[in-house]
Amino acid sequence: MKVPVLAINFKAYPSAFGSKAVEIAKAAERVARDTGVEVIVIPPYTELRQIISAVEIPVFAQHGEPVGYGAHTGWIPIEALKDIGVKGVLLNHSEHRIRIDEIVKAVDMAKKLGLETLVCADTASTAAAVAAVEPVAIAVEPPELIGTGIAVSKAKPEVITGTVEKVRKVNRDVIILTGAGISKAEDVEAAIKLGTAGVLVASAIMKAPEPEKVIRSMAEAAAHAWRR
Amino acid sequence: MKVPVLAINFKAYPSAFGSKAVEIAKAAERVARDTGVEVIVIPPYTELRQIISAVEIPVFAQHGEPVGYGAHTGWIPIEALKDIGVKGVLLNHSEHRIRIDEIVKAVDMAKKLGLETLVCADTASTAAAVAAVEPVAIAVEPPELIGTGIAVSKAKPEVITGTVEKVRKVNRDVIILTGAGISKAEDVEAAIKLGTAGVLVASAIMKAPEPEKVIRSMAEAAAHAWRR
Amino acid sequence: MKVPVLAINFKAYPSAFGSKAVEIAKAAERVARDTGVEVIVIPPYTELRQIISAVEIPVFAQHGEPVGYGAHTGWIPIEALKDIGVKGVLLNHSEHRIRIDEIVKAVDMAKKLGLETLVCADTASTAAAVAAVEPVAIAVEPPELIGTGIAVSKAKPEVITGTVEKVRKVNRDVIILTGAGISKAEDVEAAIKLGTAGVLVASAIMKAPEPEKVIRSMAEAAAHAWRR
Amino acid sequence: MKVPVLAINFKAYPSAFGSKAVEIAKAAERVARDTGVEVIVIPPYTELRQIISAVEIPVFAQHGEPVGYGAHTGWIPIEALKDIGVKGVLLNHSEHRIRIDEIVKAVDMAKKLGLETLVCADTASTAAAVAAVEPVAIAVEPPELIGTGIAVSKAKPEVITGTVEKVRKVNRDVIILTGAGISKAEDVEAAIKLGTAGVLVASAIMKAPEPEKVIRSMAEAAAHAWRR
Repeated sequence: MKVPVLAINFKAYPSAFGSKAVEIAKAAERVARDTGVEVIVIPPYTELRQIISAVEIPVFAQHGEPVGYGAHTGWIPIEALKDIGVKGVLLNHSEHRIRIDEIVKAVDMAKKLGLETLVCADTASTAAAVAAVEPVAIAVEPPELIGTGIAVSKAKPEVITGTVEKVRKVNRDVIILTGAGISKAEDVEAAIKLGTAGVLVASAIMKAPEPEKVIRSMAEAAAHAWRR
Repeated sequence: MKVPVLAINFKAYPSAFGSKAVEIAKAAERVARDTGVEVIVIPPYTELRQIISAVEIPVFAQHGEPVGYGAHTGWIPIEALKDIGVKGVLLNHSEHRIRIDEIVKAVDMAKKLGLETLVCADTASTAAAVAAVEPVAIAVEPPELIGTGIAVSKAKPEVITGTVEKVRKVNRDVIILTGAGISKAEDVEAAIKLGTAGVLVASAIMKAPEPEKVIRSMAEAAAHAWRR
Repeated sequence: MKVPVLAINFKAYPSAFGSKAVEIAKAAERVARDTGVEVIVIPPYTELRQIISAVEIPVFAQHGEPVGYGAHTGWIPIEALKDIGVKGVLLNHSEHRIRIDEIVKAVDMAKKLGLETLVCADTASTAAAVAAVEPVAIAVEPPELIGTGIAVSKAKPEVITGTVEKVRKVNRDVIILTGAGISKAEDVEAAIKLGTAGVLVASAIMKAPEPEKVIRSMAEAAAHAWRR
Repeated sequence: MKVPVLAINFKAYPSAFGSKAVEIAKAAERVARDTGVEVIVIPPYTELRQIISAVEIPVFAQHGEPVGYGAHTGWIPIEALKDIGVKGVLLNHSEHRIRIDEIVKAVDMAKKLGLETLVCADTASTAAAVAAVEPVAIAVEPPELIGTGIAVSKAKPEVITGTVEKVRKVNRDVIILTGAGISKAEDVEAAIKLGTAGVLVASAIMKAPEPEKVIRSMAEAAAHAWRR
């Protein structure tokens, strides 16, 4: 994973499916090329194949079971995601929390398969715990701000700086992202100024009338803030 | 759902993904045409789109969240499955048990969207409970036989007849299928003779060197037993 | 279980523990004697022994694992509850939902041990499903009304009558209780007039300055409505 | 928590309930006095009050919900456990795994209430993650050895040394215990020699014909190994 990062969680919004999803992924790819920012798209399971075949930027799954191929009705093994062509897996999102032993298994399995992992955490302590498992990246998302349009980087900057501090005691290398409520370019700038390497964002892009505009302004803010 | 039924749960076996999965779905379609049996394919989320565009027989999802579009990271709403083109949803498989209130919500939501539901149950009592929720179909799968190659219709015929009896007291219309350990044509025949309308099968087909052969022999046995 | 029923869920309110809990149980016992109503107390696990030794009215547990004695850290087996002296077990409360197969196992296990079961349901459909499992009693509790002080018997009488109708198609014998938002004697009266055999109540009693007064007025209303 | 530690998880074995449980707790107390070892007893919820009133050694709960008093049917809040008189809480046992955000909440809440925490972990990585949350103690229990009588300290000494190493990078102060399969005094000795401060043990004591003998031999081995 390059830095700075703009990771776009498609969730299960209407725009996360079908041709809209492909358009947003292509827009993300254009912006990635123009700005040099690592723009990652994270669509639902059902859309992975068509988005992977449509773009060359990293595509992550929104979750993955820490198991191999086998008898797992209704679950997608990380091993299968690898073969489908994802570059990485999002884990432990506040809408899909898992147990710590599952995070360990999933991160280890992803590593062996050559996949990246981006693990969410709700507090500085959780982030430190997750950092000890050595994923590629962490996103700190205070759940009370998710989807509110109130950026954690503004409303609770001390959560970000506190997280960075706690995480660095445990793990010097993990990439730290800011999540929850990121809605404008200036939130991205703030996230980077507070010591993280980018953002995990969802509704601000997926619900925008013109997603590409939002992606572009956020990526430019990230590139600009990062250079300084 | 027409009867008799041969429902194929792809699970997450290696053959459930990629070109192999499409081949098995196409084989299922050929057999459906030749025998008149309702052959249903149930692939993983990631393969739904390509299989739906490849065949005209009913494609079911292996699960579906009883929610609308929205902020659901790592979960696929039933509403989205409808728009992707599935004909129905499998629910409460022994590898993906859900709460009774979730079964109710999922069945009701599927009905409103015009989707069929096939709900699994581990015992006659559970089957009766599920029947009260009025899904289109039920599959009885004693978990201790799943994947063993020991057909419930042989090893525990009383589970099937007991289930049919209990379910019919609660619901006269629901289609009842036999699951767990179905491995040969004669298991399908036995399932129908015991009073059910077909089978839910997985490993016997998904792990077969020649899946079409197994699908064909099972469908023919179903058609033959059903006519009598 | 006799009828009419006033079942008191202590939950984990402050008054559910220690001497306050014993006092409320004793008050319930006095009221039961005076009114002839079946008053059931349902304290937390930690208080079961002292309340069972303090009163002779039925004491239920708030949950019970459908397992025997053994290696179950942090869980209380139904088998152990029996030996501790409970008369029955509450199951599937909206704050402790379980899977349908677990409800079946728990009800069957309780029956074998001679324990009664009171199973909660959030809708008429869920209630019908639960009725098919044949517990001793069902409580219908629309979750959106729990703890609100808005009685389901007033706000949604059609939920109660609809539930009674649906349940009776499946099970003629099960005792049906009304839950959620029961806060006054008149709510109890309404619950019985709508065709149920009593109520499951929590905060209205547990948070009352004088719990005995509330228990008494509710039990009297139940006795009075039941006689008619 | 003093060191060395002999923590006895009563689980839900028959001997974990009633007078047998009290006897084992009293035996543990005698041994604690005689040896100076920190013997901790961890009975089921239903037995906490009688054991707390019978002994003066630390009594822990087998789990605790990270919530305050309130509407929590079937769950015991950590806040209530504090008032009941426990000295600490066991968390995340392999038979009761919880999510990492719940571990964080539970540890933080326990700390504020003045309770100790002993958090289980299945691997060195999980242990390191848990260590970052700063509980008082950690127990490493490879789940495949639990209840087998095969001591992890013998079968997989590298799990213990690897865990100690990983944990110490993250947290210098946390007490590390060895769990899983501890069945003899020599397993306790090995656990201490490998760098941990004692053991978490269950079946070897709870299923013993003479529990006090086993407790005594283990505590003596702990005291002896610790002095060196």
